[in-house]
Amino acid sequence: MTKTTVLTVQVQFGDCDPAGIVFFPNFARWMDAASHHYFRECGVPSWSQIDEPAGFVGAPLVETRIHFFKPATYPDVLQVHTDVEIWRAKVFIQRHRVVRGATLVCEGHETRAFCTRDAKGHLKAVPVPEMIRALCN
Amino acid sequence: MTKTTVLTVQVQFGDCDPAGIVFFPNFARWMDAASHHYFRECGVPSWSQIDEPAGFVGAPLVETRIHFFKPATYPDVLQVHTDVEIWRAKVFIQRHRVVRGATLVCEGHETRAFCTRDAKGHLKAVPVPEMIRALCN
Amino acid sequence: MTKTTVLTVQVQFGDCDPAGIVFFPNFARWMDAASHHYFRECGVPSWSQIDEPAGFVGAPLVETRIHFFKPATYPDVLQVHTDVEIWRAKVFIQRHRVVRGATLVCEGHETRAFCTRDAKGHLKAVPVPEMIRALCN
Amino acid sequence: MTKTTVLTVQVQFGDCDPAGIVFFPNFARWMDAASHHYFRECGVPSWSQIDEPAGFVGAPLVETRIHFFKPATYPDVLQVHTDVEIWRAKVFIQRHRVVRGATLVCEGHETRAFCTRDAKGHLKAVPVPEMIRALCN
Repeated sequence: MTKTTVLTVQVQFGDCDPAGIVFFPNFARWMDAASHHYFRECGVPSWSQIDEPAGFVGAPLVETRIHFFKPATYPDVLQVHTDVEIWRAKVFIQRHRVVRGATLVCEGHETRAFCTRDAKGHLKAVPVPEMIRALCN
Repeated sequence: MTKTTVLTVQVQFGDCDPAGIVFFPNFARWMDAASHHYFRECGVPSWSQIDEPAGFVGAPLVETRIHFFKPATYPDVLQVHTDVEIWRAKVFIQRHRVVRGATLVCEGHETRAFCTRDAKGHLKAVPVPEMIRALCN
Repeated sequence: MTKTTVLTVQVQFGDCDPAGIVFFPNFARWMDAASHHYFRECGVPSWSQIDEPAGFVGAPLVETRIHFFKPATYPDVLQVHTDVEIWRAKVFIQRHRVVRGATLVCEGHETRAFCTRDAKGHLKAVPVPEMIRALCN
Repeated sequence: MTKTTVLTVQVQFGDCDPAGIVFFPNFARWMDAASHHYFRECGVPSWSQIDEPAGFVGAPLVETRIHFFKPATYPDVLQVHTDVEIWRAKVFIQRHRVVRGATLVCEGHETRAFCTRDAKGHLKAVPVPEMIRALCN
């Protein structure tokens, strides 16, 4: 088990759609924020300050999967509980559980790969840096 | 097989993040737009103009899954190819293939349920309306 | 002078553009959130719970003006200080000062009109409700 | 008078808020897209491909002002008519008129400054490059 972090999100009027509930892509946005928040809270430097491996750009998404259980609306206050479910050789799965009090609103699993950008500008997956993994465990 | 529709998306500067590539939640946004575009193109009335079943609100997401294959950036022109992969009793799976020319950028599968809102305001899944299914096939 | 409220915003990676700074429309989004936050903090009920005048829908924008002084980036923590600069007969001007510590990042002035929706669905400006004005002063 | 360009925008369900109308910051987003579209249509290279002046990063906003005349909703098709109203020494004012058929929905005036980023990473306004001005007139 890795560390778990919690990001608090206040749902805004403009986050909701004509049906009066959160427009779904906003959950993907909050999970991305929670992913960055997770590494920051674990003490990992910003991507741009990591020199090794060279050309490091962060951890783009390879796959995302979200299950929606209950709708949310404004002015709900949500909490995103984030951990790393599994570290593989070149990818890891980050889990985000979005709750409103005791109610599970939705749950996301993001598969991400740490990447570098080569001289031609192409993204290339690299092994999970040991430094990052150690800080999160 | 159902009908297939194509929605063209022009990637904008503001759709991209500091890594210079499309910020991922925008793909979820474009897939939602493609979902609405699909039903419109198939001749389905707007959700608010559907009277039967009563309290009809549309087709909220139950689950979404997106695989990312290649990054996109501005000013790419993308095309979202959408169809319904399967109709089940109370849910259906809509598929969105986002391409840039011959390159598959990402592919999403959205599980959606047609829903009504009851007197207390709660969302409730209803069987796929036969009228909608017939228009899409 | 009216009450002043403060909304805290944590700038996220995905709020920033390829130039590495906050994509400008996000400030408009945060100011809209601050506008709602303002009325909530002053004790004004949600728009949907206001019965008088009939058909009340809230306070859509008539005009907005934002001056940008300094760029912001992630993971900046910003504070939006909001008050009502002036109440006129049918509109009011809400002011939002976005600061990062002692630095003024941008300042917005929003002219808004309280509106109702008539039987045909058209928006119509109404005089500022005395109840709302009293709660904010 | 400068050239005028037209960007077509299809309003999506997710662009609208619980009041059923376009959430205002989306107009700011579409105007930013129209600003980039304008320079592209006039034949100006992407910001990142402009070498002179050194460290060129584009044209960040100094001030924006938008008047809203009529609400818009989905699935409206809008057109953004863009030109440069005035070139000053270090800033220029870009005008965006958003119409739906013959109806003026809103009008925006953006004051922008071409900027470079110095060695410390600070943005600095530079005179309007003659090459850009010539391409737009």
